[in-house]
Amino acid sequence: MQSHVCVTGAGMTAFSGDAGVPIHELLETAATRALDDAGLAAADLDAVHVGNMAAEAFDGVSGLHNALTASLGAHGARADRVENTSASGASAFQRGVQAVAAGAADTALVVGGERMSTASTETATGVIGSIVHDREHAYGVTLPSFAGLAADAYLRRYDAPYESLAAVAAKNHANGARNPYAQFQKRITTGDAAESPLVADPLRLYDCCPTSDGAAAVVLAAADDADDAVRVRACESAVGTHAVAEREDLLRVESVARAGERAFAAADRDTGDVDVACIHDAFTVLELLELEELGFYGAGEAYRAALDGETALDGALPVNPGGGLKARGHPLGATGVAQLVELVWQLRGEADDRQVDCGTGLAVNVAGFGNNAVCSVLEVAE
Amino acid sequence: MQSHVCVTGAGMTAFSGDAGVPIHELLETAATRALDDAGLAAADLDAVHVGNMAAEAFDGVSGLHNALTASLGAHGARADRVENTSASGASAFQRGVQAVAAGAADTALVVGGERMSTASTETATGVIGSIVHDREHAYGVTLPSFAGLAADAYLRRYDAPYESLAAVAAKNHANGARNPYAQFQKRITTGDAAESPLVADPLRLYDCCPTSDGAAAVVLAAADDADDAVRVRACESAVGTHAVAEREDLLRVESVARAGERAFAAADRDTGDVDVACIHDAFTVLELLELEELGFYGAGEAYRAALDGETALDGALPVNPGGGLKARGHPLGATGVAQLVELVWQLRGEADDRQVDCGTGLAVNVAGFGNNAVCSVLEVAE
Repeated sequence: MQSHVCVTGAGMTAFSGDAGVPIHELLETAATRALDDAGLAAADLDAVHVGNMAAEAFDGVSGLHNALTASLGAHGARADRVENTSASGASAFQRGVQAVAAGAADTALVVGGERMSTASTETATGVIGSIVHDREHAYGVTLPSFAGLAADAYLRRYDAPYESLAAVAAKNHANGARNPYAQFQKRITTGDAAESPLVADPLRLYDCCPTSDGAAAVVLAAADDADDAVRVRACESAVGTHAVAEREDLLRVESVARAGERAFAAADRDTGDVDVACIHDAFTVLELLELEELGFYGAGEAYRAALDGETALDGALPVNPGGGLKARGHPLGATGVAQLVELVWQLRGEADDRQVDCGTGLAVNVAGFGNNAVCSVLEVAE
Repeated sequence: MQSHVCVTGAGMTAFSGDAGVPIHELLETAATRALDDAGLAAADLDAVHVGNMAAEAFDGVSGLHNALTASLGAHGARADRVENTSASGASAFQRGVQAVAAGAADTALVVGGERMSTASTETATGVIGSIVHDREHAYGVTLPSFAGLAADAYLRRYDAPYESLAAVAAKNHANGARNPYAQFQKRITTGDAAESPLVADPLRLYDCCPTSDGAAAVVLAAADDADDAVRVRACESAVGTHAVAEREDLLRVESVARAGERAFAAADRDTGDVDVACIHDAFTVLELLELEELGFYGAGEAYRAALDGETALDGALPVNPGGGLKARGHPLGATGVAQLVELVWQLRGEADDRQVDCGTGLAVNVAGFGNNAVCSVLEVAE
């Protein structure tokens, strides 16, 4: 049924370290851009779904969707907010896709957004730290430290050089420099990354995404209304082993593998059909691990692809053409929707300086350290 | 399509002023009870949806659904959390119903829960206050003050006595005294209510729901698997005018009217078909206003029904047989699911001392001061 849901509009705010406006305004700006793009009046919306992780803690507010629906003038719409930590955006998209697939809405607006600049480091660290297993959290293991452990294991097991991680960072910064919506518009070299401060050995500053403010939005519609639009071939998800310590292998991200398998099955597509991918690169090593979990590369092979430029804009499989979380930025609840906005622009041929040749795109948005993952496949007639 | 979704299991924790256990444990207890009731192993769940308003602010944690899914052993399930302020529970239910209706899940667990005792008064007041329009919030208008204004207008316009509000409180306390899961097991008289401290004139302490800890859960399944179970005939929602100041009439709760109309239409039922109702009585006056919005009574007529005992357990339309928010308690994200648990128990004839004769039940869960509302209709073959 999901194959009958289309994306008819897309838009986003620029991502930044401090937007200087309230979360409500970020959501409204992205929503208005997506509605304008779809040529749809807010009053004609059946449903509004907001993806946000922690406005209660970061902004001291709740019920973002009700305020947004009112400010847009989507009078009488069905509305709610979906949270799935750092994958809240993609989960809100899934909720909207299912609403349309169930016949509960003919048109739905999905808006992901987060304002992280409002939170103190203590608040942000506390809430973000809580999204992993509570014992691991209690022992002081953070997301960067999990990523550092995985990166260390990856480099050792496959005898890979640090430069393969730095290559991911340099590629995504190069892509971000072509994206006017990206938080970082600066190209870096692998040498810059190698000389940046250590965060969690072997990961350095340029291996880690920033904290960000921003929002992104898409409009969904039942297929009969928009036959030439971008089609949602699949939007699937899965939880992974919650405690990282209970995983058989630190280099496996089971949630991504499972969500990917489900999405490929639902879409009736495989890795060979995918022309462009948006991968959850909160840390450079995650881009490699996720590409392997999804089957684009065998275990221990993605790093060579990064070094060889296979995942660059002009490579065989362009990955994160918009800059990824690394360079576009990572406003938690916005990211999953921003990935889909980038795919929509790419699939329509509207990605300007970073356009790749594509008919099928895939996005993976990950919650925590693989605690949950959402995988979507979008497509246009080529 | 919604008529093919069934509730195959229901369970909840006792509601209390301080549960003394973490929010994760409340959710797990309710979930386990619902799964046991359904005779379903957690490993067989396709989806887990948690309804919670503000764990980020109240408990400093996010991603409740991922921790819950892990602790239950629902390996690989699709999971997320839905927030709709005080209607988060019913919105999570709607999300689950649509997942099953869309064919994205054959079985889904919906768990609503909140732990409010962990929040300081300052934190709770701040976050709960944020769910109304931001200008009204900035001016210092709170939910109790909105309810006080509405109650004052109601009593004046219809020349109704305060005792009609107190009658709602006394009825719901009487029902709560028959419900072992209720926070308040104490009967009160209308005189007790009239003598309780003023909160927002004319509303007194006994006109207001308490703050609470608790959780409730239901298991959903596609109809083919459970033909004799309780059927979800409809689960519909609508936002209302966000700013109360912009409403044409302070005594109208448009979100409830609209959600109710949609639910009756989707269910192909009307008020005359409803045998029992769970109404969002965060304040006594709301029970009256919502019964009128839903069409059970004309404007200004519900108070007579309350005085005449029509909405008592042995009345023509038993309302809030489980004690309502007033006496069962109101752990924000739990309430919407607890209403449905009560309906399931009533429809199955398992409500013991508070059993009413019923085949069709309706529940309304309201966000904020009518900023959003969710209306569900459940049914069994009589």
